[in-house]
Amino acid sequence: MAKKTSAAPELEKMRHSASHVLAQAVLEMFPEAKLGVGPAIENGFYYDFDLPRTLIPEDLPLLEKKMQHIVKQNMVFKLSELPVDDAIKILKDANQKYKVEMALDLKKEGIEKITFYENIDQNGKRKFIDMCEGPHVEKTGKVGAFKLTHIAGAYWRGDEKNPMLQRIYGVCFETKQELDDYLKKLEEAKRRDHRKLGQELELFTFDDEVGAGLPLWLPRGAYLRNRIMEFAFNTYLKNGYDPVVSPHIGNAKLWGHSGHLDFYKESMYGPMMIEEEEYRIKPMNCPFHVKMYKSKMHSYRELPCRWTEMGTVYRYERSGTLHGLTRVRGFTQDDAHIICRPDQLKQEIAKALELTLFILNKFGFNEFEMNVSVRDPENKSKFIGEDDRWETAEQVLKEVLNESGFKDYVYDIGGAVFYGPKIDVKVSDSIGRKWQLSTIQFDFNLPTKFGMTYIGEDGKEHTPFMIHRALLGSLERFIGVLIEHYAGAFPAWLSYYPVALLPVAAAHEKYAEKVKEDLWKQGIRAEIYAPTDTLGKRIREAELKKTPYMAVIGDKEVESKSLAIRNYSTKKQETFKTAEFIKSLVKEIG
Amino acid sequence: MAKKTSAAPELEKMRHSASHVLAQAVLEMFPEAKLGVGPAIENGFYYDFDLPRTLIPEDLPLLEKKMQHIVKQNMVFKLSELPVDDAIKILKDANQKYKVEMALDLKKEGIEKITFYENIDQNGKRKFIDMCEGPHVEKTGKVGAFKLTHIAGAYWRGDEKNPMLQRIYGVCFETKQELDDYLKKLEEAKRRDHRKLGQELELFTFDDEVGAGLPLWLPRGAYLRNRIMEFAFNTYLKNGYDPVVSPHIGNAKLWGHSGHLDFYKESMYGPMMIEEEEYRIKPMNCPFHVKMYKSKMHSYRELPCRWTEMGTVYRYERSGTLHGLTRVRGFTQDDAHIICRPDQLKQEIAKALELTLFILNKFGFNEFEMNVSVRDPENKSKFIGEDDRWETAEQVLKEVLNESGFKDYVYDIGGAVFYGPKIDVKVSDSIGRKWQLSTIQFDFNLPTKFGMTYIGEDGKEHTPFMIHRALLGSLERFIGVLIEHYAGAFPAWLSYYPVALLPVAAAHEKYAEKVKEDLWKQGIRAEIYAPTDTLGKRIREAELKKTPYMAVIGDKEVESKSLAIRNYSTKKQETFKTAEFIKSLVKEIG
Repeated sequence: MAKKTSAAPELEKMRHSASHVLAQAVLEMFPEAKLGVGPAIENGFYYDFDLPRTLIPEDLPLLEKKMQHIVKQNMVFKLSELPVDDAIKILKDANQKYKVEMALDLKKEGIEKITFYENIDQNGKRKFIDMCEGPHVEKTGKVGAFKLTHIAGAYWRGDEKNPMLQRIYGVCFETKQELDDYLKKLEEAKRRDHRKLGQELELFTFDDEVGAGLPLWLPRGAYLRNRIMEFAFNTYLKNGYDPVVSPHIGNAKLWGHSGHLDFYKESMYGPMMIEEEEYRIKPMNCPFHVKMYKSKMHSYRELPCRWTEMGTVYRYERSGTLHGLTRVRGFTQDDAHIICRPDQLKQEIAKALELTLFILNKFGFNEFEMNVSVRDPENKSKFIGEDDRWETAEQVLKEVLNESGFKDYVYDIGGAVFYGPKIDVKVSDSIGRKWQLSTIQFDFNLPTKFGMTYIGEDGKEHTPFMIHRALLGSLERFIGVLIEHYAGAFPAWLSYYPVALLPVAAAHEKYAEKVKEDLWKQGIRAEIYAPTDTLGKRIREAELKKTPYMAVIGDKEVESKSLAIRNYSTKKQETFKTAEFIKSLVKEIG
Repeated sequence: MAKKTSAAPELEKMRHSASHVLAQAVLEMFPEAKLGVGPAIENGFYYDFDLPRTLIPEDLPLLEKKMQHIVKQNMVFKLSELPVDDAIKILKDANQKYKVEMALDLKKEGIEKITFYENIDQNGKRKFIDMCEGPHVEKTGKVGAFKLTHIAGAYWRGDEKNPMLQRIYGVCFETKQELDDYLKKLEEAKRRDHRKLGQELELFTFDDEVGAGLPLWLPRGAYLRNRIMEFAFNTYLKNGYDPVVSPHIGNAKLWGHSGHLDFYKESMYGPMMIEEEEYRIKPMNCPFHVKMYKSKMHSYRELPCRWTEMGTVYRYERSGTLHGLTRVRGFTQDDAHIICRPDQLKQEIAKALELTLFILNKFGFNEFEMNVSVRDPENKSKFIGEDDRWETAEQVLKEVLNESGFKDYVYDIGGAVFYGPKIDVKVSDSIGRKWQLSTIQFDFNLPTKFGMTYIGEDGKEHTPFMIHRALLGSLERFIGVLIEHYAGAFPAWLSYYPVALLPVAAAHEKYAEKVKEDLWKQGIRAEIYAPTDTLGKRIREAELKKTPYMAVIGDKEVESKSLAIRNYSTKKQETFKTAEFIKSLVKEIG
């Protein structure tokens, strides 16, 4: 078990310092530059400037050179605290109007002293001073390995009524090796960007008239989506889950009763009227499942209920935050609710976790980070539900993780949702990036709000526990991650066409047709690339589509009833008897 | 080919006459009764009365007896036309205030003569007179076989500001045999009512807080729904269709562009706001598919596109018209759009029709009535699209039906949708009722509105044909019909548990567990009814759930590795080797 932490303090200092050095370099290039703010951020830093001209990408290497020069001089970062009025005077003299504004604000807040850092060269001469909280490394020689990456516009203080400044971004690591690795990964991530691949592979599209954040799944993408959904759904049914289906809209009475109109209204779409009653499109499936549970009495013998639904929900996200498939306004959850007795809790959580790993493994995710989010015991009033329920639930989550070999889970005190504690599962993708996908959450809100009960062995009514779990999470987001994880080269079982058949010439088309038929009979989709183009061109075409298996068919293959298979992922070529190849593919695809 | 017709004129007369005789009988029972209207309706007739007391069901046999007496007397129906003022006087004298009101209205409209019918007995004496348009049969002895069925309230002239009258319903046929058959069918239909069975079998439920017309699918119903959806969807994919997926909401810009906000607004839900833009929940999937088509250029070589989506749509229906699953506000269509060249039209329509029959056959529907709806050539302005497109399309629909053995299709001139002609397919269910399920429609609206094109062999842009087809239609409605068709006794492949395992005593449970496991391994869901109750009680329980196969397991069965199978539909009992039974079931379920 590990508490939540951010980057190491030393690295934070380096990034702060790099930003400080950048400001010095910019002032060397543009003595009239006005400085904004320059914080350390994830993987690096940025600094905002008001400059006499618009920067161009070619400026970055020049600035980097100046920064390197400063680093080589190994200047000392000298801290000084000045009385606030002195500070304001210095900044005014330097004509740093943004810093003046900040200092005046600090004064208003009653701050008496303001921190500055100076860069002092070997001769003891001050080369640069900036109002800055720090902390910094000792000398400029210790800022580590950095690189300026890009330029963007940013309103002063994030307010669009303020002037637009120029923001320079940089990355910074302790060693050159780490920096290079990071930049390589960045390049690789760009190559794998699901928005780019989604378009190239014709998986999905967006349309202005349809609306932002609402993906349209084209055939190849819809096929992929359906395969994933089918696999997950059938796995759940095999594991004792029952399907349920609920509508996409519900009367405002329902959302009032569930509390969503109190605590979730901001994320919900506006009301629509039907016969003078207000309806809302659903942001969650839960209240519907609760209503189904309430449609009859339940005995303790019937529990657990495990109800699953591929439920499409709609949540408002600001248009500025939308991002391909990973941040959308409408998405399908592989949702499920487990309604059970207290004595079934541990087994149910353990089973859900086991199922999570099985599902994620299937997609080649093998590295997991478990996160347990619990209530803040100092701040219980922020959370609803009885104390003993919280304690039982938190205890079960920890026990199950400990007993499943995840003793090193991250423990987030106060990170629970207001209605219950949870386990979130993060996976590492093929280039080591972490994504949060699965969640297993307790819900203490709805069972009470709707008066869910079961008749216990004692003949009395009891409130069941309700666990909400989504293993893929949002199907849209999951596929976005999956496209980047596989770089668009899906394994055969997820491919629209796992096999491309390439007859060398017209004479080989008949055999190709026969093979195609044999494959389809086995449920394997194959496509023929007719010899209207050169073989080389057709191979390139099938490569561009990232087809897992390309089968070239010439005289030799027709004669020996075989296929010359090019494997997309290994790039190897090997000849197989056709029947043998089909058999092995059936086995692979399952 | 047959033109659309209603009931035979002679039967219509009988029903009119029966209603007339009913009025005479009521006046005999309540001389102070005031008569309302009494038309012939489908399968029978009704008459509205203002009576001194509320009728009770026991009144109906008494009234029927009086009617039979009138029939036996074989009175003549005598027609007389009276000048309107004489008519009003007669009615006033008879104190028939509703009839007076009607006669005054007719006078206002300028009508000069009003038709009355008198019942004249063997002695030439008038026994009854009523203002009535007729036509009637010759004598009361010819009214055919009738029965009074029920009583309901009805506002005078359908206006809730008017007084409430008592409506007596009756059915009427030419022969006693037909009447008996009809009444039996009515009884049978009641037994099969999907709303009743849906509750008894725990298939679905409705909830006030969720909203009217929005079904919640409980596990057993959701399982059934999923099996049907899976079968249809996979059949489409195997037949050259591609999946697509679209969101449930779209910007108002889209619905404006498509024309839905002009011609379909009444059936659409009110707008909801997102970031000051209006969105609507979708009543149809079409505009989304069109947008997908438009997301890239298409060559003639890529056509046909056959795109299918299990798309859930929401349409406003007045709450008074909602009815179980067969009339809901949200339903899932097995929608598809075929976008093709003119030279592909005939083949595509023929294939779609073939697929329709295959799909419907699978559910035991073998009797079809084909309906072709075309444009009214006298009233072309009501329909959009070019003349030659309409002619081509109508010609293709007729040709395909003629060549597929459906020469006797019903031909509905003017029944086309404004945007194109169509084939509607009606099926007969197991008790002979007709239901309209499948539809194959041309759409001349959207391709033009959105400028859909493909590049032809000539290098120029052409407008493709777009065909919309839904074979199950609305999945909700289809399942409603299916429940009644099967009377809730679903075939094994659609059953939540096709097999119930009933160990006679505790000693047989182990073998039952083994059989259950073997079945599940083969993808067959089986449930054990543990011996906590008597065998008889458990058999009844499994019968109530309409389980297709009940397998009783006693000493003999354990010893010989066999199962004593009770077949729900044949009611036969037979012993099979377990392995053999599983094999045959795998074959049956497919």
